[in-house]
Amino acid sequence: MAGVREMTIGVLGGTGAQGRGLAIRWANAGLKVVIGSRSAERAQQAAAEIAEISGGDVTGQDNAGCAATADIVLVALPWDGHAASLESLRAELAGKIVIDCVNPLGFDKKGPYALPVEEGSAAQQAEALLPDSRVTAAFHHVSAVTLADLSVSDVDLDVLVLGDDREATDVVRELADVVPGVRGIYGGRLRNAHQVEAFTANIIAINRRYKAHAGLRITDV
Amino acid sequence: MAGVREMTIGVLGGTGAQGRGLAIRWANAGLKVVIGSRSAERAQQAAAEIAEISGGDVTGQDNAGCAATADIVLVALPWDGHAASLESLRAELAGKIVIDCVNPLGFDKKGPYALPVEEGSAAQQAEALLPDSRVTAAFHHVSAVTLADLSVSDVDLDVLVLGDDREATDVVRELADVVPGVRGIYGGRLRNAHQVEAFTANIIAINRRYKAHAGLRITDV
Repeated sequence: MAGVREMTIGVLGGTGAQGRGLAIRWANAGLKVVIGSRSAERAQQAAAEIAEISGGDVTGQDNAGCAATADIVLVALPWDGHAASLESLRAELAGKIVIDCVNPLGFDKKGPYALPVEEGSAAQQAEALLPDSRVTAAFHHVSAVTLADLSVSDVDLDVLVLGDDREATDVVRELADVVPGVRGIYGGRLRNAHQVEAFTANIIAINRRYKAHAGLRITDV
Repeated sequence: MAGVREMTIGVLGGTGAQGRGLAIRWANAGLKVVIGSRSAERAQQAAAEIAEISGGDVTGQDNAGCAATADIVLVALPWDGHAASLESLRAELAGKIVIDCVNPLGFDKKGPYALPVEEGSAAQQAEALLPDSRVTAAFHHVSAVTLADLSVSDVDLDVLVLGDDREATDVVRELADVVPGVRGIYGGRLRNAHQVEAFTANIIAINRRYKAHAGLRITDV
């Protein structure tokens, strides 16, 4: 496969904080980025802003156009609507590496908690809905605030990359390594994605207690 | 409350690798440790061995004696039998801080995976069975091999401590801090324990891929 630096990265839901933060870093590193949104106009507005911040090559399209144009696609959609959006993009995403970074969480007066997902996890739901794609899961715990701030030149974080397709997880690890300071680490099969997604609730609890933008590092690796 | 260094720490299932590793570190740091096992004789044998390795004050009793003697109790029992054992120790554990470190995991030819738990997690099962105890969850991701090797003088690991009782989680964090290099970090409410337990499957997958004894560090805290 071509190296990630020759690929066009699509970011479905690139107008949200998590997708936007990653898009800024990828574009800043010289990768070609296509922002996707339900509205092509909002995608183009976000792309212009991200291009300005990153100094990179960023364009915007509606989600279908983004999925069709990109070589590799990050799913950074809201959990509410995740299934319906992916189902509608099955053809555009066929044959491509898809990276799901969605965290199905609820919030109540006691704070964040993991929502049950019938398929086990958002990533497994994506796998079920996109039988012709190469589905991986990664980038769950990135701090959107830290990513969007390019003055942070060393992002202190390991990105866990999950999936059953070795080549696909290797490509996604490369995509993590593009962000200065970040390491992409293989984190297990897709059937072990639930706890990685759900762990975002713990990260949020840690952030609240310690007033931090917490991330994970894997030791001894 | 008294500091942890004045407390007697009970380790239910202290003949297993995880309980034994922690017992060695606590005893080595000067804490009084009581090993519990179904058989008092096996507990005493393990205690003698741990006392020798650690140079500390370690005794052994059956699980009920261990629970009755200790001020604070680590539950390091096998998942199979977790519920029945705790139910039988309800009276001995009443009023005490209980730390559940059990990871309900299954293994098949694809490797480790998280088992479903009716109560949500081993820790929540403990909470349901021990209504008069102060149940916390911690020490899930510690490497038994690294703990048992006292030549490792800086254990590179953060221990996530979960629970709804602030004072109890503070005491357990102190107990983590006793191990050189380790930090106890508040990791959320008990309802968010499942993903921390299940994440052990990912740690095992990482260990296999990278031939490591992986642990977690929380960044920006």
